[in-house]
Amino acid sequence: MTAYKDFKPLTFHDAAKRFADGSDTPRAYLERCLETVAAREPVVKAFTAINEAGARETADASTARWKEGKPLSAIDGMPLAIKDLLETKDMPTQMGCEAFKGNFPKRDNAAVWALRQAGAIILAKAVTAELGGSHPGATTNPFDATRTPGGSSSGSAAAVGANMVPAAIGTQVGGSIIRPAAYCGNYALKPTQGGINRGERQATSQSTHGPHANSLQDMWQVAIEIARRAGGDRGEVGLMGPSTLPAAVKPNRLVVLETEGWAEVDNATKAAFDGVLKQLRDAGVELIRRKDHPWVEALEQSIANGRNVCGGVTSWENRWGQRGIVDNNPAGVSERAKATLAKAETMSLDDYRMALLARQNAQRMHATMAPLADAAITLACPGPAPVWSGDVPGQPLAPRPTGDFVFNAPSSMLFAPVVTLPLMSVGGLPVGLQLMGQQHEDARMTGLARWFDETLKRVSA
Amino acid sequence: MTAYKDFKPLTFHDAAKRFADGSDTPRAYLERCLETVAAREPVVKAFTAINEAGARETADASTARWKEGKPLSAIDGMPLAIKDLLETKDMPTQMGCEAFKGNFPKRDNAAVWALRQAGAIILAKAVTAELGGSHPGATTNPFDATRTPGGSSSGSAAAVGANMVPAAIGTQVGGSIIRPAAYCGNYALKPTQGGINRGERQATSQSTHGPHANSLQDMWQVAIEIARRAGGDRGEVGLMGPSTLPAAVKPNRLVVLETEGWAEVDNATKAAFDGVLKQLRDAGVELIRRKDHPWVEALEQSIANGRNVCGGVTSWENRWGQRGIVDNNPAGVSERAKATLAKAETMSLDDYRMALLARQNAQRMHATMAPLADAAITLACPGPAPVWSGDVPGQPLAPRPTGDFVFNAPSSMLFAPVVTLPLMSVGGLPVGLQLMGQQHEDARMTGLARWFDETLKRVSA
Repeated sequence: MTAYKDFKPLTFHDAAKRFADGSDTPRAYLERCLETVAAREPVVKAFTAINEAGARETADASTARWKEGKPLSAIDGMPLAIKDLLETKDMPTQMGCEAFKGNFPKRDNAAVWALRQAGAIILAKAVTAELGGSHPGATTNPFDATRTPGGSSSGSAAAVGANMVPAAIGTQVGGSIIRPAAYCGNYALKPTQGGINRGERQATSQSTHGPHANSLQDMWQVAIEIARRAGGDRGEVGLMGPSTLPAAVKPNRLVVLETEGWAEVDNATKAAFDGVLKQLRDAGVELIRRKDHPWVEALEQSIANGRNVCGGVTSWENRWGQRGIVDNNPAGVSERAKATLAKAETMSLDDYRMALLARQNAQRMHATMAPLADAAITLACPGPAPVWSGDVPGQPLAPRPTGDFVFNAPSSMLFAPVVTLPLMSVGGLPVGLQLMGQQHEDARMTGLARWFDETLKRVSA
Repeated sequence: MTAYKDFKPLTFHDAAKRFADGSDTPRAYLERCLETVAAREPVVKAFTAINEAGARETADASTARWKEGKPLSAIDGMPLAIKDLLETKDMPTQMGCEAFKGNFPKRDNAAVWALRQAGAIILAKAVTAELGGSHPGATTNPFDATRTPGGSSSGSAAAVGANMVPAAIGTQVGGSIIRPAAYCGNYALKPTQGGINRGERQATSQSTHGPHANSLQDMWQVAIEIARRAGGDRGEVGLMGPSTLPAAVKPNRLVVLETEGWAEVDNATKAAFDGVLKQLRDAGVELIRRKDHPWVEALEQSIANGRNVCGGVTSWENRWGQRGIVDNNPAGVSERAKATLAKAETMSLDDYRMALLARQNAQRMHATMAPLADAAITLACPGPAPVWSGDVPGQPLAPRPTGDFVFNAPSSMLFAPVVTLPLMSVGGLPVGLQLMGQQHEDARMTGLARWFDETLKRVSA
């Protein structure tokens, strides 16, 4: 275990500079990662599969390319973990679900294919909560093993937070990238809906792939290297932007969103957030909240039921797929997932259409306020990762064992790009701050995040 | 073989009236279908699997419901064939592809689930061209076995044209519902993009499920019974409209589209089409063509490269999925499909983005002309089904063995609803006429089609 205050994040972009002059190699970098894996994985439990032999082979090929001065990309040789919802041709894809135990389709998701084209090393599959939902896997928080790493991208976030890899791929439907990233001290990008090609995973209307990393440089580089090769979802132009980390952009005015989660935030987390806001004001950034402008109030109202809107949309869209899994193998699916399915099957088509309408109205309200401010900021999670010691037999199922997605539902339903940064520490544990932009402003949000990262100090509370 | 001039289409809506009074039953209806299957299937070869036992069981349950006066819907007891791209829990899903031989996922596609909820009988899986592309299966045209039934919904169209079932489900990406329907004398609806829930088949940005039938009544009823239960695609409101066939609507003005296919249409087909137009003029309907209005000319120009736009979009979107299949089983995929994949892999992301842009521009032009006319009409196929005697070893692969989708690319890229009707006969073979509306005008197009069906006489040439 590493105390968060002593955390020295493992990054790749700076190591790559040394690959070019020969003072380091991708193979040596990989071996250091594998040493960390040996030390940390027994407790963190981030992975469902590790392909050490394949990784070493790829690392050697990368080492040779850097030596010749011909790397395939800036992430050539980067070891990565892939959330176990995405198919990989050399490791099983078990989706955190007993019914998929041993599932091994032997093909690459489009994003995985793109990473390989860029020379990256697909080192491991990372634990996902069951089928991307809320039933947790075995992963623990890298800064306190009694706590959840968040989910559903549990293993991706924890692997980065434990320095086992410099970056990982997660996916988000409601809050599955940004919340675990915030709990594990990652930087992460939840792109504009459709920004990164989901390949075979097109099942829900609000899900995205996105990178977790220990630096903005690596986060952006992974995202753009995928998007340059595999583009966005079907019918979408996909993520666009500069070929390396966008320049820092100082905001003039930011909207501070409270969301439906504000009332439940503890005082220490509020104090840490206030510490960030104070630094922004001191830097001359104007901050406006719901009381300051009727458009902000209107947006807050349009997202005030965000968890239910996201939950309704998603469970309706997943019901046929999940029904098929449960019918074929009732014992292979958790009671938690079965309860979600049962609820979905009580929905009417009009319930779904009303949830879509609520989502569209919120999106219109959000688009309207584009000229009002440079971005919206808020907490990326309601506080530090909660303790999770497992379900208790005979007791009702905990509703949110991987934490509450209340601060993540808004950007998910708005299809908006979000970057989270580890700008706070509460009770010795990481808490993220997120920046949310208009659709397709992924690069601009990353530039704003860079200014935050370079200008503000982490606040402890 | 039935000569097309003697074709007496098998319908369901009229039989269902007799189920209510006891003078016929779903089980007896099914047995008549099975007799036709026994007589016709050896030559037509529409099916990859037939579940006779399951169908009889469902038919008996339906018979009991009708007897009690409690049918689940107007299609309770209707025997249907399902294109073999859609998953069915009781029959394999082999997608016309050797690599998927024996594939049996034992779950229902959302549309199949909805049909079962409505009491329909899932009798058979229908042949699809390989993976929904252009490499044909064994199916022959029900009106001339030397000719193609069209594709990729080959079996769905032929099964209806051979009266083996009153209706079937097909799918369209470029022209895979409307063209085979037109070659086989079917009525068919290619819904607005997103109109019918594609379930697990969300791979491409312009594909739809849709019904083939021997009457407009059955066509609409199948579509609306699915949409009422399973809705549209993820994020879409889905097909909406009356719970039985919409009332007939007489058009005031129609746009006659020529499309890039016009130059290649033979004289007999042009004469038949002119015969339809003459009846429209005689009925007081104003017809305008590209020379009559600059907006029609602008739309014609925006779709003039429709085949390439559809081909580019689709092959890019399918490339990762198809690469995975080919890598796992190179001998399990046709040379025709491999050539398409090879071409897709030479595309750049910008090629794809330009194809999307062309599609969006055409959609904008089409939306602009909404107030200009009630609908657009054109041929549903370039003429009667062409002769197809198979590939010749050593010869180059025929580019379009299931016929040319030149008249189908426009509605596919425009995401527009289309109804085809068997309003022409050329050289003794069916040729369809299609009506195309604005997005979400599926019910209105069906109402216009009803007026056509009730008012115009079939033209032979």
